[in-house]
Amino acid sequence: MAPSHPQHIKGVFAAALTLLDADLAPDIPACVAHCRWLLANGCDGIGLLGTTGEAPSFSVGQRLGLLDATLEGGIAKHRLMVGTGAAALADAVELTGHAVSSGVAGCLVVPPFYFKNIGDEGLFAWYAALIERVGEADLRLILYHFPQMSAVPIPHKVIARLVAAFPGTIAGLKDSSGDLDNMLGLIEAFPGLAIFSGTERYLLAVLEAGGAGCITAGANVTSREIGRLYAHWREFGGDPEAGALQQRVTALRDLIEGVPMIAAMKVLVARHRGQAGLARVAPPLAGLADADASAFLARVDEAGLILP
Amino acid sequence: MAPSHPQHIKGVFAAALTLLDADLAPDIPACVAHCRWLLANGCDGIGLLGTTGEAPSFSVGQRLGLLDATLEGGIAKHRLMVGTGAAALADAVELTGHAVSSGVAGCLVVPPFYFKNIGDEGLFAWYAALIERVGEADLRLILYHFPQMSAVPIPHKVIARLVAAFPGTIAGLKDSSGDLDNMLGLIEAFPGLAIFSGTERYLLAVLEAGGAGCITAGANVTSREIGRLYAHWREFGGDPEAGALQQRVTALRDLIEGVPMIAAMKVLVARHRGQAGLARVAPPLAGLADADASAFLARVDEAGLILP
Repeated sequence: MAPSHPQHIKGVFAAALTLLDADLAPDIPACVAHCRWLLANGCDGIGLLGTTGEAPSFSVGQRLGLLDATLEGGIAKHRLMVGTGAAALADAVELTGHAVSSGVAGCLVVPPFYFKNIGDEGLFAWYAALIERVGEADLRLILYHFPQMSAVPIPHKVIARLVAAFPGTIAGLKDSSGDLDNMLGLIEAFPGLAIFSGTERYLLAVLEAGGAGCITAGANVTSREIGRLYAHWREFGGDPEAGALQQRVTALRDLIEGVPMIAAMKVLVARHRGQAGLARVAPPLAGLADADASAFLARVDEAGLILP
Repeated sequence: MAPSHPQHIKGVFAAALTLLDADLAPDIPACVAHCRWLLANGCDGIGLLGTTGEAPSFSVGQRLGLLDATLEGGIAKHRLMVGTGAAALADAVELTGHAVSSGVAGCLVVPPFYFKNIGDEGLFAWYAALIERVGEADLRLILYHFPQMSAVPIPHKVIARLVAAFPGTIAGLKDSSGDLDNMLGLIEAFPGLAIFSGTERYLLAVLEAGGAGCITAGANVTSREIGRLYAHWREFGGDPEAGALQQRVTALRDLIEGVPMIAAMKVLVARHRGQAGLARVAPPLAGLADADASAFLARVDEAGLILP
């Protein structure tokens, strides 16, 4: 049986793209419009300013500004899970404190990602200092395990110690390892946490095991299909039709994993919105070459992926 | 023959420790006193706010403040090479612009370190955007190659393209790979750049090949020995006595490589200054356990490493 997760912190979250203006700063109107579109097309929530949102490429000021603008743009605060991690503790404290004050559903916090092989003690101390310095009983912290990108994994031992020290505050974990066994192991080991898959490829498997859902890049362009799977599962469980819906979701996931994912999805969104400039990515990411973009769009069309 | 490097950007630089107060913020008076001590004891310059200085653990505001305070504390600007890299382009622009306006000798810039496997195009674009946005003819940028920590290497191709696009601005490279062959290859491939070893272990070898010197953590506690080697080499070249001095430097390096280096050196500095609190490190680094600290100090004493 699925554990009861904090309300609103479950379901299908899009790790939203941060669309950019010509100066490579967040294009606020375009970002807000994209979030609205996602919520109207299958997403239960928005993961704002995560990896897919290129958050580490923006200053604290830019990140605070985008959250404020998103709320002012009418996106309900309880739909938002905000990436508030940073290499610097002071930055993470500022970002997290602001997000909690803004009333968002949760804060997704990647480990500090400069120093490597830091040891359990240092990693625990960092999260503990963050929580204590933010000092807000309303903080719902989602740990963000993405060893391929952060190069700083979050070991079970550290999770257990944090859960024991800060019950209620440590609300969940996003597992972007891509390793289903790891996700299932977390669900088993931490029944009180909302465990999210970082890929829609394992959405059904994670839900069936008692997980909370997914927070994924792919949902930027396949939210309807992922949302349909989740809605079906809630209504009917893991029947054969759920399996077929998962197969379709997985096939679409394959499409965007074969290319630089953020750049490719931006190409698709830019075409959908009729604004070529929205394909921009912030350095150090690079945009797709024209030929690669055309080939990607052709594959997307062939697969019948249609953005409404 | 050694190429002519920009004045002041050569010799022995200490990658200075950032000593901390009880709030885990830079302890300004202690930091300034440490820099003064280093310059009076064998260092030609200070590498402020690099990896050893735990720079990525501090906010932009904390980093700007420490540079200002260091200059106000009487450290000559031409002695300073300042770490001004960051994951976010906007942060690196602000830090680098401020350092150049302050008149420092150089800016040491690590690649943006969140996204991995970013490709040559994105890495070049990031440095190019940094240089163009700073827009200061006086910028002397030292590339910082430290693949084990940043997880983002700087390939020769990208260096060559940056040197061609921004001659004069790209002034050097610090190689912290620990791979002497890589350092020698860089010296050969880029005779116009000041190539620094990131370890004093290879100081003599790098100088003999035409390199600029070293920027090293170890110099925080062995600056006299390293400075003696450099002074001897400048006067007499790589004679047998230089070899013996290098052997002594290498033996001391071995001491600090066997332990968490930053934490251990802070233990030593704290003892030397008679202020136990100066052993603090910022999370996610962790301090040495008491027994490890005692054992380290015993080994240091046995090796005859005496801070004056």
